[in-house]
Amino acid sequence: MATKYFPNEPTGPKVVQFPGPISTAKKESLHKVFDSRATYFVVDYKKSIGNYIVDVDGNTFLDVYAQIASIPLGYNNPALIEVAKSDKMINAIVNRPASGNFPAEELEETIQDLLAVAPKGQNQVWSGLSGADANELAFKAAFMWYQAKKRGYATAFSTEENDSVMKNQSPGSPELAILSFERSFHGRLFASASTTCSKPIHKLDLPSFNWPKAQFPSYKYPLDKNEDANKQEDQRCLDIVEDLLKNWKCPIAALLIEPIQSEGGDNHGSSFFFQGLRDLTLKYGSLLIIDEVQTGVGATGTFWAHEHFNMSPAPDMVTFSKKFQTAGYYFHDPEIVPNVPYRQFNTWCGDPARMILGGAIGKEVKSNDLSAVCKRVGEYLYGKLEALQAKYPTYFQDLRGKDRGTFIAWSFESGATRDKFLTDMKQSGINMGSCAETSIRLRPTLVFEEKHADILLAAIEKVISGY
Amino acid sequence: MATKYFPNEPTGPKVVQFPGPISTAKKESLHKVFDSRATYFVVDYKKSIGNYIVDVDGNTFLDVYAQIASIPLGYNNPALIEVAKSDKMINAIVNRPASGNFPAEELEETIQDLLAVAPKGQNQVWSGLSGADANELAFKAAFMWYQAKKRGYATAFSTEENDSVMKNQSPGSPELAILSFERSFHGRLFASASTTCSKPIHKLDLPSFNWPKAQFPSYKYPLDKNEDANKQEDQRCLDIVEDLLKNWKCPIAALLIEPIQSEGGDNHGSSFFFQGLRDLTLKYGSLLIIDEVQTGVGATGTFWAHEHFNMSPAPDMVTFSKKFQTAGYYFHDPEIVPNVPYRQFNTWCGDPARMILGGAIGKEVKSNDLSAVCKRVGEYLYGKLEALQAKYPTYFQDLRGKDRGTFIAWSFESGATRDKFLTDMKQSGINMGSCAETSIRLRPTLVFEEKHADILLAAIEKVISGY
Repeated sequence: MATKYFPNEPTGPKVVQFPGPISTAKKESLHKVFDSRATYFVVDYKKSIGNYIVDVDGNTFLDVYAQIASIPLGYNNPALIEVAKSDKMINAIVNRPASGNFPAEELEETIQDLLAVAPKGQNQVWSGLSGADANELAFKAAFMWYQAKKRGYATAFSTEENDSVMKNQSPGSPELAILSFERSFHGRLFASASTTCSKPIHKLDLPSFNWPKAQFPSYKYPLDKNEDANKQEDQRCLDIVEDLLKNWKCPIAALLIEPIQSEGGDNHGSSFFFQGLRDLTLKYGSLLIIDEVQTGVGATGTFWAHEHFNMSPAPDMVTFSKKFQTAGYYFHDPEIVPNVPYRQFNTWCGDPARMILGGAIGKEVKSNDLSAVCKRVGEYLYGKLEALQAKYPTYFQDLRGKDRGTFIAWSFESGATRDKFLTDMKQSGINMGSCAETSIRLRPTLVFEEKHADILLAAIEKVISGY
Repeated sequence: MATKYFPNEPTGPKVVQFPGPISTAKKESLHKVFDSRATYFVVDYKKSIGNYIVDVDGNTFLDVYAQIASIPLGYNNPALIEVAKSDKMINAIVNRPASGNFPAEELEETIQDLLAVAPKGQNQVWSGLSGADANELAFKAAFMWYQAKKRGYATAFSTEENDSVMKNQSPGSPELAILSFERSFHGRLFASASTTCSKPIHKLDLPSFNWPKAQFPSYKYPLDKNEDANKQEDQRCLDIVEDLLKNWKCPIAALLIEPIQSEGGDNHGSSFFFQGLRDLTLKYGSLLIIDEVQTGVGATGTFWAHEHFNMSPAPDMVTFSKKFQTAGYYFHDPEIVPNVPYRQFNTWCGDPARMILGGAIGKEVKSNDLSAVCKRVGEYLYGKLEALQAKYPTYFQDLRGKDRGTFIAWSFESGATRDKFLTDMKQSGINMGSCAETSIRLRPTLVFEEKHADILLAAIEKVISGY
């Protein structure tokens, strides 16, 4: 696919000088008007192509981080450029509707394109603007669902509810919780940050809801040699979840979980664990929300990562953003639509321009079976990394992501070594990302192929062999 | 300007059949995949032009609601179509960057375009995705600022802070508040909904932060005949604010207010009141955040509505969205940038595509002095409405918005009459919006002129004279 989309993709990285002088100067200048302290380098997106990102100094990096796991089809993908030039897109850009009140004639078609790649069992969409927004919109739906059930689906609210909510007090503003997991990442707005639990820096100084955190399994690797211990770990974690669902100080409207905890370290859970969660949420009357913001859209070898688990029944809501370039949640139960209008509502109700792009991305991924490409390339890459692991075990601890496409990670003995490795890789022309305290996460585009994997592997070995 | 931009704009509305059969069928069909209960009519945005919105049945409405106060320059504005077709826009659509880590070469220029229309005294921007998002990002900045000051600007966090925040507990997750006002609207995510206080439906069933609400002045109209009473009202409200700043159960990091409470009823406050708030926030060490999501970008006769008040010093943050088509906050004090990186951070840090559009909108408004157009047309319209008020006083209570451009509102004796009026106006070819329980708010585009005002006024009189 890289060849089809990008006949002129570079054949390898090229580092002129990193960090380069132009990038350094531009970063400094930008900081006067926009916080640029997190900038790695300033990018020339016009020159970036396919799997290669080009900075303003002409450094060309093979990009296996892809805008924090967000570029689906490579830079300047010609299919998406066509969509960006289309009358439909231009119309969506200049005439942004308040889609709840005045939807465009084309909105249903746009939504149908998003539904064409919906996870199994999902048949409706509510749209938002970012991963954090998508999750919080799902929380809103969960809380409204929970209370509607409690009041027997009455569509009128009591005077006491109407009065108390204006004072931010119960019963109109009830004590309810979302249950999430230690090491999870679900965003950085106030409610989403209250569910996020990977690093203090994400939420220090923010007032938060005191919502419960269960434990996500910590497996022993390799998985095939530690089956019993890991199953025990699953059960231990399920027991904690059940205890919280039974005994937390307020009702838990929904359980929120990533199929693979990404920012928190690429932590995996088994099908047994996820089916166990599905069963527990049904037993205790909570909803199950799967956060596919980082895991969704093909990279794990299936379009949605939680499809690997074959959970039954399907999750109640599945949130998305990042590689889909549009945000929101899928659902299927009509009761997830609040039983009074104007409750799940806001001015724009999403961005049709980004929704059109998301639909186009879905079509490209499906019609070119890019999930299968990720599966194939992932198997190739994982096998080669296993070989490197055998050779340099210190630098390849807990290799993770077998049978999960290119969604691969591993750990170093320390954060300092990991950070040095990342810097050395940039010097070698590879742009990579980290997760948790000591890990690397690979998040290439969906058009990353064996030839790119070979370049990545050669650079890794060159760097590691020097340690 | 309407003539310059839209030589082919319709000369008046045309109602074929409302609600039309195609719109009704499409609304129903859309509802199967996307909650469409709030839909007034389904729109053909391709055919909509200038101040006229065209539905799928061919009904042509003069639009003085403009996507809930969000369309700045009329439908299918040719200047914005040019921008939407530009290479810069196409690049921003297909290569959406994680702008914190990998900013585009053009980002600084894009930000400078937004700064070219910044409120007086503001010189930096942080970008978001919607009005609610913009406000919550401003809250985050305020809380981080407050705590940084408290810990003497140390850049290290204590072990206790790092540990407690992972449990959503103090001191890492402190008890701090945002002070807002009764009848305010600031969005519907969890923290923003905790500050919103206009209608129960916006926040029922959502857990919330129990943050304080002061009272926004309720003036007697007409203003020029009630100066003493209204000044007393200002002082009464300022005293409530001071009491809350002094005595609320936890520290108040910021005070949040709209220059004109919009969703809550087009409630106005005087320069005296706003300067009083500025003084109180300085006296008690809180920040002042002005929410210009609905009021900003020209309609009130100045680019930013709070510029009418000449507050000194300038507010600490000014949030924007809607007519700017991009969201975020302006600020000026370097201390508003959190003193450790990666705190005010997320994957995308805004949307460059929408930021480019915002910059272009700013340029058009400035270069054509559309604020002055709104001032001129607003004076004309307000004068004519005063005449109607004299003739039909029952249907024009508390006429508001003198010297505030086209940002005009009035009230009916009851919600039922107001709702009937809105329906009758749609039948007469005018798409209008309401606010609070009994009011009408006018929110035309910035290219609404005397000739459009005449059509609006004629329709209003025709409907009202029949009551």
